[in-house]
Amino acid sequence: MAHVYVYSPSGAVRDRAAFKRGVARLKALGHEVEVDPSALASWQRFAGDDDTRLAAIGRAAASGADVALISRGGYGLTRILEQIPYKAMARAIERGTRFVGFSDFTVVQLALMKKAGAVTWAGPAVCEGFGATDAGDAAEGHGGLGSANGQGGPDEIMLACFDDMVSGSSEGTGWRLPAADIAALNGKDGLVARQAPLWGGNLAMVLSLLGTPWWPEVKGGVLFLEDVGEHPYRIERMLLQLLHAGVLARQKLIVLGQFTEYSLSVHDKGYSLAKVVAELRSRLKVPVLTGLPFGHVPTKVLLPVGLPVDVLVEGREALVLWGHQH
Amino acid sequence: MAHVYVYSPSGAVRDRAAFKRGVARLKALGHEVEVDPSALASWQRFAGDDDTRLAAIGRAAASGADVALISRGGYGLTRILEQIPYKAMARAIERGTRFVGFSDFTVVQLALMKKAGAVTWAGPAVCEGFGATDAGDAAEGHGGLGSANGQGGPDEIMLACFDDMVSGSSEGTGWRLPAADIAALNGKDGLVARQAPLWGGNLAMVLSLLGTPWWPEVKGGVLFLEDVGEHPYRIERMLLQLLHAGVLARQKLIVLGQFTEYSLSVHDKGYSLAKVVAELRSRLKVPVLTGLPFGHVPTKVLLPVGLPVDVLVEGREALVLWGHQH
Repeated sequence: MAHVYVYSPSGAVRDRAAFKRGVARLKALGHEVEVDPSALASWQRFAGDDDTRLAAIGRAAASGADVALISRGGYGLTRILEQIPYKAMARAIERGTRFVGFSDFTVVQLALMKKAGAVTWAGPAVCEGFGATDAGDAAEGHGGLGSANGQGGPDEIMLACFDDMVSGSSEGTGWRLPAADIAALNGKDGLVARQAPLWGGNLAMVLSLLGTPWWPEVKGGVLFLEDVGEHPYRIERMLLQLLHAGVLARQKLIVLGQFTEYSLSVHDKGYSLAKVVAELRSRLKVPVLTGLPFGHVPTKVLLPVGLPVDVLVEGREALVLWGHQH
Repeated sequence: MAHVYVYSPSGAVRDRAAFKRGVARLKALGHEVEVDPSALASWQRFAGDDDTRLAAIGRAAASGADVALISRGGYGLTRILEQIPYKAMARAIERGTRFVGFSDFTVVQLALMKKAGAVTWAGPAVCEGFGATDAGDAAEGHGGLGSANGQGGPDEIMLACFDDMVSGSSEGTGWRLPAADIAALNGKDGLVARQAPLWGGNLAMVLSLLGTPWWPEVKGGVLFLEDVGEHPYRIERMLLQLLHAGVLARQKLIVLGQFTEYSLSVHDKGYSLAKVVAELRSRLKVPVLTGLPFGHVPTKVLLPVGLPVDVLVEGREALVLWGHQH
């Protein structure tokens, strides 16, 4: 099937069992898995010191693999944004390597858009994507679409999307919208975005680039966002910063993925993520769709960051279409 | 003594006992306390809906009080940044009203600098400053200078600083530096900043203005920062964003206050706030001092946000001096 290069650019792999399960699963799926020599390195909370992780990224870019897959997210890429070998990564992408990741990896994906106009894939990592236990992943968040399948092991939708990306047959993705989204569209369904660059990822990581040289300055795009462990008031604060900075109004469409692993308290008194979305919609003319199956959840579609997409709303279905790439 | 106007621009007051203690303490200190009619309002997690809180800010500005003091922080000012009556607040400041607050209030303090060149005071709130229990405040954070005094009730240093501000005799503040700070200065002690505008506050709230119309764009300033409930990796990520955005290099001095209420885990493996400070120093020529007694801790000095200050390092002592104002 594919040559998959596994490397660790961010946090240290602590759950080695999940890592082993993920690598074994990729092999069982028929892939040739090459594990970077420092994939299991550990320095402080990181997968090796900054130079070690930079070297790992360089080896991933030089690997000639079909897919360069992060072992996990965490934190660490912000420290090396200035030294990341963007040109080498862009050349690898031209040669056919697909860089796949999410969470902390968001900053590299956006920096590659900015510095090299290169396309990467928002998608799973080895540990918490392919490494899900056979007993089923209980780490599902709140109110998300992201239910693990009942069979245990990696989510089947994620696996199918990964296969489509590997085979080059990936042309788009779709999901069922909540009724509130249809109401909020006020009849403006149909083609809600046309040839609009898809960008985004983890909300906190997107925000962390604002004002820096790696901010991609996308206009007329489709911005997708997810986050984990952030209370709705923090999600709102981040969304309002993007609003106040003029970023949201410059997009064609905002698409919210899964926001998980937070706890509301009695003091919230009805304040909720749904209220945040309603507040955002009240302040923004650009349409906001929700429910994208992407985030820190098992059911994660793969999305080409940096590619132009069409977005269609037909009845209760949303479709993000990028067409055949290869 | 002073006419103190108490209002709630952010989160709802849930700890009414602390609020009552704080008001009673202010009265016992001889102040005339005027409580805004919506000081105890509650809507979702906020002290009233957006219009209610805007009206409260307007009444505080119109009160003619010597001090306009927030009841507490929380979250809420980000939602009303566009509507806040900056001009009315600036006129009140010209007439002698001192706006005092911290945490969520940081965004108003920086927006007032930007929009009106007006000076406010970083300092306590009613609930967790003046409302401390007589049994002593046990909410002390990690590794901070901010120990409550042994006598219970509000911190004595905070009270003394508040008195100095009220009487107009406040001319500066000082604290003892950690030995590591002296070593990091490499002999560049003495006058480390001269007539440099003092600005800052809560790190997350400072960051939340980056890229927005309320970002104050201070050059050659003294930037002070504190935060609560943020793991050191998040503190580092925020500091690196300020670094990457060029903000830190444009300052004369960075002063770190108290960072409290976070937990390190076994997976951090030695990563710590001290490591974050060392990392920052390794990347920045501008000196970084630590230990400022300011943050989500009882021992909180009052600092004039927007005033030019001199900063002196003499032996192990740091002094921030703004001179006699009134």
